[in-house]
Amino acid sequence: MTDVRPVPAASVATWDHEADVVVAGYGVAGAAAAVEAAGAGADVLVLERAGAWGGAAALAGGFIYMGGGTGLQKACGFDDSAENMAAFLDAAMGPGADRERIADYAEGSVAHFEWLVACGVPFKPEFFGEPGWEPLGDQGLMYSGGEDAYPFNTVAKPAPRGHVPQMQNKKQGQASAGFMLMKPLVQRATDLGVRALYDVRVQSLVVESDGRVVGITARQYGTDITVRARRGVVLGTGSFAFNESMMARFTPRIAGRPISAVEQHDGHGIRMAQALGADLAHTDATEVAFVVDPQQLVRGILVNARGQRYVAEDTYPGRAGQHTLYYQDDTAFLILDEQAQEEALASQTPKLILRKPKWVCETVAELEAEMGLPTGSLQDTVARYNEGAARGEDPVLHKKARWLRPIGSPVGALDLRHATGGFPLGGLRTTLHAQVLHVSGEPIPGLYAAGRCTAGLAAWGYASGISLGDGSFYGRRAGRSAARA
Amino acid sequence: MTDVRPVPAASVATWDHEADVVVAGYGVAGAAAAVEAAGAGADVLVLERAGAWGGAAALAGGFIYMGGGTGLQKACGFDDSAENMAAFLDAAMGPGADRERIADYAEGSVAHFEWLVACGVPFKPEFFGEPGWEPLGDQGLMYSGGEDAYPFNTVAKPAPRGHVPQMQNKKQGQASAGFMLMKPLVQRATDLGVRALYDVRVQSLVVESDGRVVGITARQYGTDITVRARRGVVLGTGSFAFNESMMARFTPRIAGRPISAVEQHDGHGIRMAQALGADLAHTDATEVAFVVDPQQLVRGILVNARGQRYVAEDTYPGRAGQHTLYYQDDTAFLILDEQAQEEALASQTPKLILRKPKWVCETVAELEAEMGLPTGSLQDTVARYNEGAARGEDPVLHKKARWLRPIGSPVGALDLRHATGGFPLGGLRTTLHAQVLHVSGEPIPGLYAAGRCTAGLAAWGYASGISLGDGSFYGRRAGRSAARA
Repeated sequence: MTDVRPVPAASVATWDHEADVVVAGYGVAGAAAAVEAAGAGADVLVLERAGAWGGAAALAGGFIYMGGGTGLQKACGFDDSAENMAAFLDAAMGPGADRERIADYAEGSVAHFEWLVACGVPFKPEFFGEPGWEPLGDQGLMYSGGEDAYPFNTVAKPAPRGHVPQMQNKKQGQASAGFMLMKPLVQRATDLGVRALYDVRVQSLVVESDGRVVGITARQYGTDITVRARRGVVLGTGSFAFNESMMARFTPRIAGRPISAVEQHDGHGIRMAQALGADLAHTDATEVAFVVDPQQLVRGILVNARGQRYVAEDTYPGRAGQHTLYYQDDTAFLILDEQAQEEALASQTPKLILRKPKWVCETVAELEAEMGLPTGSLQDTVARYNEGAARGEDPVLHKKARWLRPIGSPVGALDLRHATGGFPLGGLRTTLHAQVLHVSGEPIPGLYAAGRCTAGLAAWGYASGISLGDGSFYGRRAGRSAARA
Repeated sequence: MTDVRPVPAASVATWDHEADVVVAGYGVAGAAAAVEAAGAGADVLVLERAGAWGGAAALAGGFIYMGGGTGLQKACGFDDSAENMAAFLDAAMGPGADRERIADYAEGSVAHFEWLVACGVPFKPEFFGEPGWEPLGDQGLMYSGGEDAYPFNTVAKPAPRGHVPQMQNKKQGQASAGFMLMKPLVQRATDLGVRALYDVRVQSLVVESDGRVVGITARQYGTDITVRARRGVVLGTGSFAFNESMMARFTPRIAGRPISAVEQHDGHGIRMAQALGADLAHTDATEVAFVVDPQQLVRGILVNARGQRYVAEDTYPGRAGQHTLYYQDDTAFLILDEQAQEEALASQTPKLILRKPKWVCETVAELEAEMGLPTGSLQDTVARYNEGAARGEDPVLHKKARWLRPIGSPVGALDLRHATGGFPLGGLRTTLHAQVLHVSGEPIPGLYAAGRCTAGLAAWGYASGISLGDGSFYGRRAGRSAARA
């Protein structure tokens, strides 16, 4: 394990590199920070551990959570406001979500969208309205957090806020619209004179005796290097998804099952700052991925080990996964009849992605017995569901009428036990200006952070696009704050 | 907010007090540390913020979780082993529980019991076998973690491990057997020459340039004082239950509802150590109290907002509370018929503690309608429960046959919405020798901790007695480690 202890500035004899603002990590937070710092006139150097820019962002589906009436929302015919967006996020980001941050983020969202467009990020003004984890084509807008599902559709006016950069020649099942976010941002940074060093693994923060962060040490090709930051250091080093010890201590329920993270996400950036007394927040919170296609999910009923329904099947599938992992001991079964399975197969979803039922029977009673569920439990659940569905209602979980149809025969069940994974959402506690907070409550001078090495908008809840969203939004803040310092 | 930053030893001109081992906090961890450090020949000074010793421990019900075949278990006719105890704790302390710590604790449990007895802590060799949060009389032993309930009774051989110090002249409903733990421990410490200063609020750790902790600064009656620790500092300062910011960031679900904590539990000790780069663990985990009497709980069925059962009603009531708070959005109703309510009233439980039903009806259908539950939901649940109960079975949740009886008429429901509270279980990461770990993975020289300022045995799960248990057990380790340093 590399040491994370701070290095006294007095012990640094020579600086191998120097810049006004030094950014650790060339993912979405680092790229946004670099563009803004350079735009504010700072000389910027980015240190990236991998051999190329991109981070987890470049491999991501590419949702950026924005709203409040962006140009794309308007072009697709949706009304939204900052207040409406904040009302949704307050409800959906979970107990402990930071309302002040949510209000700040919603308030700045339209301008953030315009900034991305000005940086050259392309968005096609077309809405994708089918169930799915992301658009199947190159559509630019989609519901990505269950905004139109219960209970959120009773809290705020539904508006889609998942903004997806447009990919040329996208192939079915290919998920890297995030590349089309990163490419223009890095191009823009380069145009502004931002320099980057690759294969550089940051080690420790360099600190003056008064506590100010003035540089960073790193290893490059086996050699120790020192990098001076005249104005500030920005951490954009990602989460601790690949740090086994931290995952076991903070997010045991997804330990060993990191999803949508890259190996560089080993928590080192977080620990370097903790070694200076930096505070943490929401360390327990995780995003949850659920390995099932929404085309099946919306057409079935999701039950637990007691044969009970527990979440509206047409909500954000990550939320269904979260309820399964946290509230149902990672045990779920999706009950769907032959017609539902055929409809899902007839959708545009790639056939390979759709799961096959593990059990298929003529009657629900037989299915319940084969699955080993308590006698009568599934029969009761299906009978009540069918009773409501026949009149277009779901009194228990309020699934939308569009997806209500009595379950017929033959009937099958997908085995969704241990079909979850995810990445941690907790990390460094920061101000709205992306200053890293010490446990004393004061900012650590010269140290800024954004992206998944920080606690962002989400606490217990999540929506797709929140990480690229708060990473880019507060990455920009970090770059501006550091350039001004 | 008082600053928590470390003070350089070079800046301390004079020491107002000095000892080999300085203990912050005179609760259970501090008292156990003081006894052991003094017993090992160290000169010990305890700094207590309140006007007297005791901490949360002296106000607690007094369970100490011990087993593996203690003298008390044997005297009450129960078999147990360290392996059996560890098997239960591995299952019950939740995802992320530290198996190495559990094994260590179980291994040393019989000797720990004998040490407490040798210190003068009295235990009456009598088992209390009725439902309740604690014994109604002065009995010394009780199930305190659902050891005899599903699913734990399938994982390990049931053995009661809640050891309760005997109180003289205990009055009904009075809950301070913890005083009978603290009084002998403090007496023993005093006999060994331990000194104590009261009304002393610790502020910052004093640190040598090489990182070793050599003292502590504090405020007493408005004056700053410095205290030198020749061998080590032991933190026994309790949890962050009364730190609003930490509760909001780490344990939002119990924020504003601290239970079984004292106001001194403001997280300051944790933050002082974090300021040195100390690591944290299980910051999200909480104990959960459930404001309902088990005499009612076991005789009813607990349902959620969808009219579904979700936890065996005869398990550890804290577990029922935990499932309610975390998995059912803090919403529960206890359905029980008139006969069940009368049986509970006929028990020895003080009448004042038993809740009255909010709704009472002749039929379940009427009750369901009055409560506003989805039509048919509660009717289905009760019908299936009654079907099983009639033949002495609970196929869904495996409540013990002793408590199974079909629910009759009239039937009522207790309103158990927002009937929970608790205290956080997360805190400083320590070794099994109670050394505080730096984020680098190395111990911080001279710094030890135990009790609820540390992450102990419990992660997601809990049993009554775990906090006084690991607080006293690792408090002793802290005292011995510091004395030896």
